[in-house]
Amino acid sequence: MTVTREHVLAVVQSYCDLLTTGTAAQIADLYADDATVEDPLGADVLKGREAIQGFYATIEPLDRHGELKLVRATNNEAAFSFELTIKHENGGMVIAPIDVMTFNDEGKISSMRAFWTQDDIKQL
Amino acid sequence: MTVTREHVLAVVQSYCDLLTTGTAAQIADLYADDATVEDPLGADVLKGREAIQGFYATIEPLDRHGELKLVRATNNEAAFSFELTIKHENGGMVIAPIDVMTFNDEGKISSMRAFWTQDDIKQL
Repeated sequence: MTVTREHVLAVVQSYCDLLTTGTAAQIADLYADDATVEDPLGADVLKGREAIQGFYATIEPLDRHGELKLVRATNNEAAFSFELTIKHENGGMVIAPIDVMTFNDEGKISSMRAFWTQDDIKQL
Repeated sequence: MTVTREHVLAVVQSYCDLLTTGTAAQIADLYADDATVEDPLGADVLKGREAIQGFYATIEPLDRHGELKLVRATNNEAAFSFELTIKHENGGMVIAPIDVMTFNDEGKISSMRAFWTQDDIKQL
């Protein structure tokens, strides 16, 4: 399979859409079996499907909304800014990272690194 | 020297400011002597002070304006979106990349990779 820039852009959009509507399993399906996730930078690097699905399982039960803001992509890498809003009965928060992803030859995400710190969280 | 997140943020701001007002030498001064620049992704990787200064020399004589839009940083990495507007008598263009930089222990940029394609250039 030749991966195109259009495919990479579509996966990034799906990722942000699934942050709103997806299960942890659906989000993890975007990743390669041996993919790595470092979110945020400096955190332990998660490796493999089980660890990555477990990571997204923490947001699965929440009232959440993902919105893609800006994306720049080639046929095997992407950098994009997005906002993840999480609401609860007493308020909520908005996390606004820039994520950097690499893609393998099958078009799956092979690595994701999320650039954000506590300073990039806004309380609602 | 312990490099701080504040230092990294300040260098990113300086970089964008110098895209407006700086000489190629001033911009190159932000980089480590053995730094690498890949701009845009997929282009030949430039290595070292001379090559990097030469890269910025191409914009030095132009009517240009750099503006930082969004930055996310740790104490040794940054990702940021910015716009570089170049004007000439018949119009101009805006290039809007997301750049990813790493920093060495002296607080100099050790690598820069610019995420953009021809699709991210807007003609004025």
